[in-house]
Amino acid sequence: MFKSNFAVTYIDILAASQRLEGIAYHTPVLTSRQADEKALAHVFFKCENFQRSGAFKFRGAYNAISQLNKDQKQQGVIAYSAGNHAQAMALAGQLLTVPVTIVMPADAPVQKISATKGYGAEVIFYDRHTENREEISRKLANERGLTLIPPFDYPDVIAGQGTATKELIEEVGQLDYLFVPIGGGGLIAGAAIAAAHLSPGCIIIGVEPETGNDAQKSLQNGKIIKIPVPKTIADGAQTQCIGELTFPIIRTLVKDIVTVNDNQLREQMQFFAERMKIIVEPTGCLGAAAVSNRIIDVSNKRVGVILSGGNMDLKHLD
Amino acid sequence: MFKSNFAVTYIDILAASQRLEGIAYHTPVLTSRQADEKALAHVFFKCENFQRSGAFKFRGAYNAISQLNKDQKQQGVIAYSAGNHAQAMALAGQLLTVPVTIVMPADAPVQKISATKGYGAEVIFYDRHTENREEISRKLANERGLTLIPPFDYPDVIAGQGTATKELIEEVGQLDYLFVPIGGGGLIAGAAIAAAHLSPGCIIIGVEPETGNDAQKSLQNGKIIKIPVPKTIADGAQTQCIGELTFPIIRTLVKDIVTVNDNQLREQMQFFAERMKIIVEPTGCLGAAAVSNRIIDVSNKRVGVILSGGNMDLKHLD
Repeated sequence: MFKSNFAVTYIDILAASQRLEGIAYHTPVLTSRQADEKALAHVFFKCENFQRSGAFKFRGAYNAISQLNKDQKQQGVIAYSAGNHAQAMALAGQLLTVPVTIVMPADAPVQKISATKGYGAEVIFYDRHTENREEISRKLANERGLTLIPPFDYPDVIAGQGTATKELIEEVGQLDYLFVPIGGGGLIAGAAIAAAHLSPGCIIIGVEPETGNDAQKSLQNGKIIKIPVPKTIADGAQTQCIGELTFPIIRTLVKDIVTVNDNQLREQMQFFAERMKIIVEPTGCLGAAAVSNRIIDVSNKRVGVILSGGNMDLKHLD
Repeated sequence: MFKSNFAVTYIDILAASQRLEGIAYHTPVLTSRQADEKALAHVFFKCENFQRSGAFKFRGAYNAISQLNKDQKQQGVIAYSAGNHAQAMALAGQLLTVPVTIVMPADAPVQKISATKGYGAEVIFYDRHTENREEISRKLANERGLTLIPPFDYPDVIAGQGTATKELIEEVGQLDYLFVPIGGGGLIAGAAIAAAHLSPGCIIIGVEPETGNDAQKSLQNGKIIKIPVPKTIADGAQTQCIGELTFPIIRTLVKDIVTVNDNQLREQMQFFAERMKIIVEPTGCLGAAAVSNRIIDVSNKRVGVILSGGNMDLKHLD
């Protein structure tokens, strides 16, 4: 087994996987001759866009909440997110009968607000131009005795996300490469730990939007670099910096971080919809766009790609 | 084994399945808790929308062309279709290096024309208001020595379509019900023969658009009833009557034929896109819409549903 001093080990991923059994979907792995022809490789798409709540985030959220003690569960949890972590936390809390509070910008898409409320969470709004969501969340957590579950920099969240890669490798076998989107680094950190154990030698490549390449810069500089909120259609990768727990894992286990631009993401989204008949949100297309555009030469290799989510406004497909 | 005097037996489906091995996709079977909650049942969606060329039609087309003799293959094949049979034939011909001619209405969607040409087929246009496509096709077939492969009333086509149900039952096990869209009846005829052998006792239900219920009328009247071209968004089910080979199979093996309306199809299409993140064309939604709307009580049953295709203009999703 791969040994490390990281916040998360393969044992944690294995335990998360047992907790998620029968609760999270074992999402299918899709292949496509047309995708293989574009990539000049054998590509395996792990469809986390089909995951409950529409993204891999459910794995980490459920694993994290299920690990709280009885008192913490009774008091409830809080998270700040305008995106997939919000819906994932709301659903996981509903399933575990733990009250969930989500701090969301007042101008978040109506669809996401109603989906989060639909799972029974309390939504608290803030003004993203004048207020700081982390401060608001911490204050509320203190006042109400809630446990804050951050979107990526949290061991049980990282371990949960690692289960997607565990399933992928268990289903398709050894991989030469694995391409993973990077926002805060929770998904790729879990993926890298799982792959190091199950497919040693698999080269892990992170993918970011061109305008939001903070993790690439961090890897290059050997320290966490913070950037202004990037402009990109990959809304799940608009994080300003990766985490203190995810960075050391990425630095050690991720071979390289590459970028794709919004046009490449749009083309990939269209390819998925028109050719493969699946809906993948822009952030979920990051890995696939890097492979299709052959940003790295993976000719004739066995290449895993994690499609991280599918939550988007369908009008963008037209 | 189920015995019959039908034009197709399970042996033919088995042979088709061997011919398609490694060529057609073994499409995945998806499940969804939300779909189960709507249906009050355990629903297994066989995703032929992910099949090569975007629909189950590839199975029958490839099986039919591959069975021709050397001379017939050299001379080429012809088909009339504005829809999925055209693209399926074009791709199957390309793979088998058999020249394909497709007779299409001059006003067919540009997308479908270019997809068919993209697979290397010759497209011949006709005026659907003044000309008869079957006559044109037969005339061309005679003049050029081409073999006409009709879209459904042809044993090798029916046998090929049956392989989808074979795969479904082999993957998920015995079914209580199987819901299948009906256009000309090729898919359901193959499905019914496969199910009779692999899951005896499985109740087969055909589903048509409300305005295009010719098969339902035929079943009720005990003879093939022809109707005017129906107005419906389910363009793959706008056939005016079922076939002379498919009817006896349907009459013997299909328990009932039910209908759904265009609004129910639209809702089902939205459900697939928004919740399950998959693109299913209106005709492909027929079976699922019948199950979701509980047209027949299938409470707590194991229900197979064939999603027949995914070729559609994405703007209809918005």
